[in-house]
Amino acid sequence: MSWSSFYHTASRVFHEYPSWSKSVVVCTIISGGGLVAYNDARSAYSDCGDQIPKKKVVVLGTGWAGTSFVKTMKDPSYDIHVVSPRNYFAFTPLLPSVTCGTVEARSVVEPIRNISRKSGLNVQFSEAECYKIDPKNNKVYCRAGQDKKLDGIEEFSIDYDYLIIAMGGRSNTFNTPGVQENAYFLKEIEDALRIRQKVINLFERASLPSISVEEKKKLLSFVVVGGGPTGVEFAAELHDFVHEDLCKLYPSLINHVKITLLEAGDHILNMFDKRITEFAEKKFNRNGIDVKLGSMVVKVGEKDISAKERGSGQVVTMPHGMVVWSTGIGVRPEILDFMKQLGQINRRALVTDEWLRVEGCDNIYALGDCATINQRRVMEDIAVIFNKADKNNSGMLDLKEFKNVVGDIIERYPQVDIYLKKNQMKDMATLLKKSQESSLTVDIEYFKDALSKVDSQMKNLPATAQVAAQQGAYLADCFNRMELCEKYPEGPLRFRGIGRHRFRAFRYKHFGQFAPLGGEQTAAQLPGDWVSIGQSSQWLWYSVYASKLVSWRTRALVISDWGRRFIFGRDSSQI
Amino acid sequence: MSWSSFYHTASRVFHEYPSWSKSVVVCTIISGGGLVAYNDARSAYSDCGDQIPKKKVVVLGTGWAGTSFVKTMKDPSYDIHVVSPRNYFAFTPLLPSVTCGTVEARSVVEPIRNISRKSGLNVQFSEAECYKIDPKNNKVYCRAGQDKKLDGIEEFSIDYDYLIIAMGGRSNTFNTPGVQENAYFLKEIEDALRIRQKVINLFERASLPSISVEEKKKLLSFVVVGGGPTGVEFAAELHDFVHEDLCKLYPSLINHVKITLLEAGDHILNMFDKRITEFAEKKFNRNGIDVKLGSMVVKVGEKDISAKERGSGQVVTMPHGMVVWSTGIGVRPEILDFMKQLGQINRRALVTDEWLRVEGCDNIYALGDCATINQRRVMEDIAVIFNKADKNNSGMLDLKEFKNVVGDIIERYPQVDIYLKKNQMKDMATLLKKSQESSLTVDIEYFKDALSKVDSQMKNLPATAQVAAQQGAYLADCFNRMELCEKYPEGPLRFRGIGRHRFRAFRYKHFGQFAPLGGEQTAAQLPGDWVSIGQSSQWLWYSVYASKLVSWRTRALVISDWGRRFIFGRDSSQI
Repeated sequence: MSWSSFYHTASRVFHEYPSWSKSVVVCTIISGGGLVAYNDARSAYSDCGDQIPKKKVVVLGTGWAGTSFVKTMKDPSYDIHVVSPRNYFAFTPLLPSVTCGTVEARSVVEPIRNISRKSGLNVQFSEAECYKIDPKNNKVYCRAGQDKKLDGIEEFSIDYDYLIIAMGGRSNTFNTPGVQENAYFLKEIEDALRIRQKVINLFERASLPSISVEEKKKLLSFVVVGGGPTGVEFAAELHDFVHEDLCKLYPSLINHVKITLLEAGDHILNMFDKRITEFAEKKFNRNGIDVKLGSMVVKVGEKDISAKERGSGQVVTMPHGMVVWSTGIGVRPEILDFMKQLGQINRRALVTDEWLRVEGCDNIYALGDCATINQRRVMEDIAVIFNKADKNNSGMLDLKEFKNVVGDIIERYPQVDIYLKKNQMKDMATLLKKSQESSLTVDIEYFKDALSKVDSQMKNLPATAQVAAQQGAYLADCFNRMELCEKYPEGPLRFRGIGRHRFRAFRYKHFGQFAPLGGEQTAAQLPGDWVSIGQSSQWLWYSVYASKLVSWRTRALVISDWGRRFIFGRDSSQI
Repeated sequence: MSWSSFYHTASRVFHEYPSWSKSVVVCTIISGGGLVAYNDARSAYSDCGDQIPKKKVVVLGTGWAGTSFVKTMKDPSYDIHVVSPRNYFAFTPLLPSVTCGTVEARSVVEPIRNISRKSGLNVQFSEAECYKIDPKNNKVYCRAGQDKKLDGIEEFSIDYDYLIIAMGGRSNTFNTPGVQENAYFLKEIEDALRIRQKVINLFERASLPSISVEEKKKLLSFVVVGGGPTGVEFAAELHDFVHEDLCKLYPSLINHVKITLLEAGDHILNMFDKRITEFAEKKFNRNGIDVKLGSMVVKVGEKDISAKERGSGQVVTMPHGMVVWSTGIGVRPEILDFMKQLGQINRRALVTDEWLRVEGCDNIYALGDCATINQRRVMEDIAVIFNKADKNNSGMLDLKEFKNVVGDIIERYPQVDIYLKKNQMKDMATLLKKSQESSLTVDIEYFKDALSKVDSQMKNLPATAQVAAQQGAYLADCFNRMELCEKYPEGPLRFRGIGRHRFRAFRYKHFGQFAPLGGEQTAAQLPGDWVSIGQSSQWLWYSVYASKLVSWRTRALVISDWGRRFIFGRDSSQI
């Protein structure tokens, strides 16, 4: 009997006698064709009216977190429904390159349907925006078409068993007047394309015969707000575009171009090592990019921008042709609405526990830029930790008792580990030892005191692609092993409660960060305080980004874009 | 003395003593460095206040005609100012490929500044639209920014010595109600990008869970109006896109897709050979593209389209998700306004003489789709031709007299040549011979009679890229040899007037035409009635188009796009 005829027979049998299924599965496992038969059985079931209904997982968003989740999912026992206003995944670290045409927009995107098709699972996709989450009825409400203005609006709702919120953030304007109306953002592919159009448009406008020199200078004043990696990279890309390509086509305008970078803090790239910050500031000065530190924007007008200088307290106003705003991430209105429903007021994002589950919801997860992990404090649980450890209820903890729980403590409260490393302590026993000689027997008060400073090491994770991608993969991995881990939980001891947590908590691994500075120079900060600046890092950047791209198609396209740029330069056609 | 120091010295000398220039030029010519010194002298002049003002040529448009003109210009004694709302040249024959992502938009465009820079001339470009031509004051009025809505409108005017109008046409709606509002056109890069977005949008919309099967079918009804090469190629591209790429990502929708091609005439591709027409119609039928012949669209609604069937006279209405309108070329409003100023009423385009000069204007030329050549009729001039030929004023034309002018007649009135070839006559003497035996001596009446049918061979040139490009190159060539041909005119005898025409008249050379039919099949009709259909023509098409592309950059990009499509398929991300 061939496999296909086996399939048909088996399907028919299941269809006609659903109650037989289990015994058949057992038989088939014995005969050695277990997995296939099991899968077939499930799909046959879902074809004939969902006798064993699959659990429905709704994923909101196709950014780093959502896409990474879909890519990592393996378990066919879920129906996955992805909802996003974008039918593609965008490789956002290359967005600044798209603004100037170093890389084409289409080279850094991959249709989500392509990605999900490769996973081999039953993934449905709807191009729509979720505008309301109803956790009581396990429903999300969606709307298609408000952006595109092509066919009117279409509304619908989707039921879920599990909801995964990965909608990302929006650009944070800090309610600065005029930003929303007059500034350009750099979060989405459309933003990058809009910036590209605008830059060329300004050069074309400044070339018109009726434009005075004064006016040319105003038009060609580019202001970048925010000295983070995105703002810095955009300023560098723009500088290169102007001085490598546009200078040939608009030779009379080049002297009128001015690029200004406004940063409210003391330094640009302040999340990087001091050496990188210094190098970047010096390089920008050499390039003629005007870096204004301690300069907080208070208003963006249609044609000018005002910033308050921290030193003098004065408000300085300067003309601009274009402002690019890149100062960080804020909460999207739909997420804010959901946070209100949950009573999460005044939080910087949707709060989850260490397993990425939204606080107060059993079946809703949140990842990426729209979420923040509420790491549990040691001090909150200090009494229950002590009690759990103190097995003989003696009120004192001795070395043996302590060794039984130390692994669980460190896993449940990662800040302990960070604190130990920071203070160069070998292990937790060192932290608890009263002096070099004394043996380890401590009471609750001493225990509290020793751990009192540990919670200060808790930090929010940065809003980066790396974090989002790791979270998506982590969560999918949990879903893949849901049943297995139900039986054999692998997480740490529950200090409040019985047994162990089902999964290990999410733990972020930092692989380093790049800051391209233009002119084939990149700064790289890698784990272990390793800093590299220059052309070699640029090549490291090229190779890391090429390898990280989501598909062979995008990889080939981006590499050919880089090649094209080396040979022909960047294109300045206004399309 | 090095060349650069020579340049500086010479410039200074010219600057200080302009009147010396001629003698210095003579000296330099004697010393062997003529051309360089002459050019330097001219540029030095224009730097120091235009003592010898250059003639200013204003070119309106950066399509095939305008770009071809700029590319072919060599004479540095003109200041060229190009005005166009698009700062790039687009290789329009590949537009249908852009609609479905077979080729990327950016691969088929080249910035006009890049093209003009390579010509080595002083070419200025303004991204603006000319909205009024004032031939009395030699001025054009331009406006920038009304399309982009980015920075408000900027208006200015430019003076010209010569004006070259190459603004192209607009899509002709034949005033059919609803077309302007509800149909998609396929003339510009933006149109192609809009169509691409819309196609994906329709598939995404049809995938939404709230859309009924009925509604899916309506959304995925694509109607193409016009069975010319563009409409046919678009229908074929769309079919390939759906059946090669989208079928993998939207498998459940493929059965709902319907492509309909409406053609008012009896056949699609009716300017091609019958064999090609038949092949195309059969292929489309096999592919499931519904070709409705004799079907004239009377109304395009938001969601349905009505067409009158010529056979039955009935009006049939069908739903559509998208209508692509490709029925030919109409006159742009600015050209219409100019035609009214000149009294050219009820003409299909701006009328020029055979030298592409606008009728009634000495220094204005019109080329490409916005112009039509008013070929002079033989019968209008029959008397003056006879008189000019009849040198001895005998009232009779003999063989010797006739031989003196026959070349000029054929050059001035190309319809004569076409008529002879069509009737398989060896030369004009054959046409005039009364019978096989008689010698050639004819009077005016007989002469008239013999040539009476010749004018029936006059035809308007098709509105194609080939015609426009040849016209642009022809006109630039005339400008390049303006002074030379002033002295040594090379054109035919002036029958009304004295002497010869300065230039030969424009003569179109047809190099054949392609009609890609999808599925790697192309029909080609080459000169000499040579017809080729199939995959070999597709490869001919690839190689001809690759070689005709405007720059090495576009060539490399288009070829890599083709390669990418073969390997990875077309992208369906909605950006």
